Formats: sequence, structure tokens, C-alpha cells
Amino acid sequence: MCQLMGMSCNNRAATTFSFNGFSARGGLTADHVDGWGIAFYDGHGCRVFQDDQPASESTLAEYVRSHPIKSSVVVAHVRKATQGDVHAANCHPFQREWLGRTWVFAHNGDLRNLQAPKWCQDVPVGTTDSEHAFCILMGRLRHHFKDRQEPPEWLELAPVLSAITSDLAQHGNLNMMLSDGHALFVHCSTQLHQVTRRHPFPHARLVDRDLTLDLGPLNAPTDIMTLLATEPLTLDEPWQALQTGEFCVYVKGQAVWRELNPETKAFAVAVPDPDLQYRASIQAVAT
Amino acid sequence: MCQLMGMSCNNRAATTFSFNGFSARGGLTADHVDGWGIAFYDGHGCRVFQDDQPASESTLAEYVRSHPIKSSVVVAHVRKATQGDVHAANCHPFQREWLGRTWVFAHNGDLRNLQAPKWCQDVPVGTTDSEHAFCILMGRLRHHFKDRQEPPEWLELAPVLSAITSDLAQHGNLNMMLSDGHALFVHCSTQLHQVTRRHPFPHARLVDRDLTLDLGPLNAPTDIMTLLATEPLTLDEPWQALQTGEFCVYVKGQAVWRELNPETKAFAVAVPDPDLQYRASIQAVAT
Repeated sequence: MCQLMGMSCNNRAATTFSFNGFSARGGLTADHVDGWGIAFYDGHGCRVFQDDQPASESTLAEYVRSHPIKSSVVVAHVRKATQGDVHAANCHPFQREWLGRTWVFAHNGDLRNLQAPKWCQDVPVGTTDSEHAFCILMGRLRHHFKDRQEPPEWLELAPVLSAITSDLAQHGNLNMMLSDGHALFVHCSTQLHQVTRRHPFPHARLVDRDLTLDLGPLNAPTDIMTLLATEPLTLDEPWQALQTGEFCVYVKGQAVWRELNPETKAFAVAVPDPDLQYRASIQAVAT
Repeated sequence: MCQLMGMSCNNRAATTFSFNGFSARGGLTADHVDGWGIAFYDGHGCRVFQDDQPASESTLAEYVRSHPIKSSVVVAHVRKATQGDVHAANCHPFQREWLGRTWVFAHNGDLRNLQAPKWCQDVPVGTTDSEHAFCILMGRLRHHFKDRQEPPEWLELAPVLSAITSDLAQHGNLNMMLSDGHALFVHCSTQLHQVTRRHPFPHARLVDRDLTLDLGPLNAPTDIMTLLATEPLTLDEPWQALQTGEFCVYVKGQAVWRELNPETKAFAVAVPDPDLQYRASIQAVAT
């Protein structure tokens, strides 16, 4: 499938170290080689870096690995295509503007029989099931808050998004991250882990690369951040697995909403297209 | 104000050489130091690179200068702020999705008394007059083609966009570039130049850097491309100035529509905020 990474922080923080480990899963330690993307929020500003090359080889990923970009919220994705070609238009995170905020969405899973209906104002640019899900999600948000002139805050958004993600998760596995730059909304169908860091900050050791970092000198004593990833990014830290059906909201580095959707079930993971498997194995040999 | 660069090509082409010269105007040969951005289209896929640092110093701009990204349409901008802070949210090109295509917009000029009205579905994320103009433009496109399920092609879009840009240009100077990845739409109020390249391709010499390139070996005999820029990017090529009120459409490297809006006039250029002038002079000293 794919893998996800996210970060929420009460101050702006760089995720260079985490992305170093995460991007190795795009061809080096795992075969998510069909593109990658990362969104960095700085206030209302949102910058998205994407490439349809494997994250472990992409020169743009190397730029992101070696240039710290301080952000309050980060959403990243390495792709293993199940639906949709390997193409820039199919790289996550996808983005749309709503009520003056840029929303981004990244997804891991395989959703079936899901197509953005004609009433949806947001129309997919690419051909993934994920972008269809995002367009449906944004369409339902727009409809629910249709009389608003100002963007609703997370406390109003949380129950609405919890219901929407629960519905979408009936179509297949919906491990997803969504943000408007303020809150980070996540839903887990099968696999998602989180760890919250605060003073005293640990030495962190990456799972995917032979790298250790003392996070103490990089952070102020008041800094609080939560990292999320499909699989834990570091050893020796207390990563917690989210449950099937868990919907969480993180604001300024901390979980502020946690809800379990009992209807959500974990679907068996679809077998990828043999051609794509073949490409992945070629890539694995090549690296 | 700002400066614009654009490219339309019948095959995918890299604009590394042109951007090398253009980005020098972000602090080296001119004082457009308040951020920059460039959008690259590859089919329906659109990747936007942006930074609020001066283009001549930004490490991301250096990445773009040194890594050829082949594209069918390019829209780039270096910013000298007149309205709106120096911030990622205020960097051009802006982008919105409409009917499954990503639209980008970049603007040079100063528009007065222009605010996206409440009926506009697209709402500015940042605080520039340019993004307000873009939201109004997209709102009028959405309204004009409101019964469509499929995106209209350039031949239908051209007269509608010509009328919209003519209206917007009543509020101030509207030198702008707009694209859906297929056509490149431009409007000139005061300053915009174009050159079309085809076989035999020339040796090109940059205005802003001591660089010369033989374009022959880089292009196939059938390649045709048009480059646009606020001021010519190269010496020894037949750059042509667009006229005040000229609205043009370029598809696959060639001008396919040209119209003169007689109501458009050139406004006197506004004097920038003294603080911004000061920052620019500091930058000029620093480089």
C-alpha cells in the first residue's frame, strides 16, 4: 500500500530527521517506490513538495532531507500504487482550498466503489481512490458548514470529520491524515502509530537508517510535538498503535480528541497489480 | 512590483536556463526579493515550488536552477511586495482546482478596491490583491460554465477570460499569467515580452547572468516553444513587447489567440511601502 507520516507541534519544528527515516521506505527499506510528497504548514501558508520518483532516490527528497523546514503541521506520504498510474497528479498529499484555508490529505489503504459524485465541488485531478475520498470528504464539509463565511475550528470539525471518515472507511482501509494547518485529523483502519515528545527530549534512533539524534538541544523545554507514522520511525521511544476505527485530532502537538468508530473494520489488504509488484521488485534490486 | 516568466511548449522542455536568468531578478539584478514561485505542469500533474526568501539566495531556487524539470507549461514569479506581508501564503503562483484541472495564477501589478465577494467559492488564503483577483477570476469562470461536468477547452475559455481580465484591469495594472496545464493565458497592462523559438534554435545569452547556451542540441527539430517574461531574458533574440490591453493564449508553444482590449489602460506604478523599499535596499547591499 503506502505509508504515512505526520507531525503536530506547539512551536514550529523541523522534521528533517524523521523524514530521513521515513523516506527510506520509498525504495530502501520498503518498496513504496511510486512517488512521495510532503506538506509543510507555516501559519496559513502551505508548501507541498512532490515527486513521482522513489523517495529514496529523488533529488527533491534529498533536498527535503537536507534542508530543515520549520513547520507547525506536516503531512507526508510514500506511495505504492494500487489504483492510479505512477504520475505527479497521483502523488499525495492532495490539496484544496476551503474558506481561505489550504487543506491537505494523504491516505494509505485501498477504497472500493468510491467515486466523487457530481454534486462534489472538488473534482479529482488524478485517478486515485484516495483523491476521490478526499473530494467526497471536502464536499461533505462544505455542505455541512455551507452557511459559514469563516472556517470552523477543530472543535466543530472533529465530530463531523469523525462521521465522514467512519463512512468512508466502509469502502476499505482508511488510514489517513488531513489538515487545515491548525489541527491534524487522523483516522486509523489498520496501521498508524503515534508518539508525543516533550521535555526531557530523548536521544532518538531511526528504524530505517543508521542515525541517532539528541533531540534535547534542538527543542525548547516548552516544546511539545506528536509524530505519527504508519510504522514507528524510531527505536527506544514509546510509540503507541492506534486502534481500528480510531479518529484523533492533534492541535499544537497534543491529542485533543479521540473517538472510536465501532463500525470501522480492517479489510484484508488487496494484492497489488502484478505489474506494479514487478516494478517494485525491479526497484528493490536496483537500490 | 514583481516579475513574471512563462513557457508553453509542444513537447516537454526544461526551463533551467531561463529560470537561471529570471531568478537573478530576485535580489541580484533587481530587487524583487519578497519571495518567488514556479509551477511546472506535466500533463494534468502540477507541481509548485515556492519560498518567501529572495530567489537569488533561496536554496530551493538553487535546486530548481540546477535540476531540469521537463514541462509543457511553466508559470513563474519573483515578488516585490506591495500589498500583503512577505510570507509563504503570499507567494505566487496561487493554485485552485476546477473541474478536475489545477489552475495556477501569477500577477504583476497593483490592483485597488478589489476584494473577492462572498459569492466567490474560492477564498484567498493570503492577503494579496493578486489572490483576490485570482479568486474573482475563478468565480466568474465557475459561474459562466456552471452547467459543465467537463473542463472547457481554450477556444471556449479565451473570450470569457479576455472579458474577465479586461474588467480586472480596470482596478490597476494586470500583467498576469494563468494556466490549466493545457493553455497559457496572459494579459498585459504595462510590461510583458514574448519570444517563440523553433528550429534552427539559437545560441541564447542571458541578460541577467554571464551564461550562454546553444539551444540546438537540447531541442528536437519539431520542438516549438514560446517564452514570456516581464523583461526579455536573453540578448540577441527577437523578443516582442505585448501591448497595453493585449490578451493572448498560447497552446503547445504557439500563440493561438490574440485580442486587444481597448478599455485597458496603463496605471502609474504605485510607490512601494517605504519599509519594503528599505528591506529591498538592505538586500541589495547584502548581495
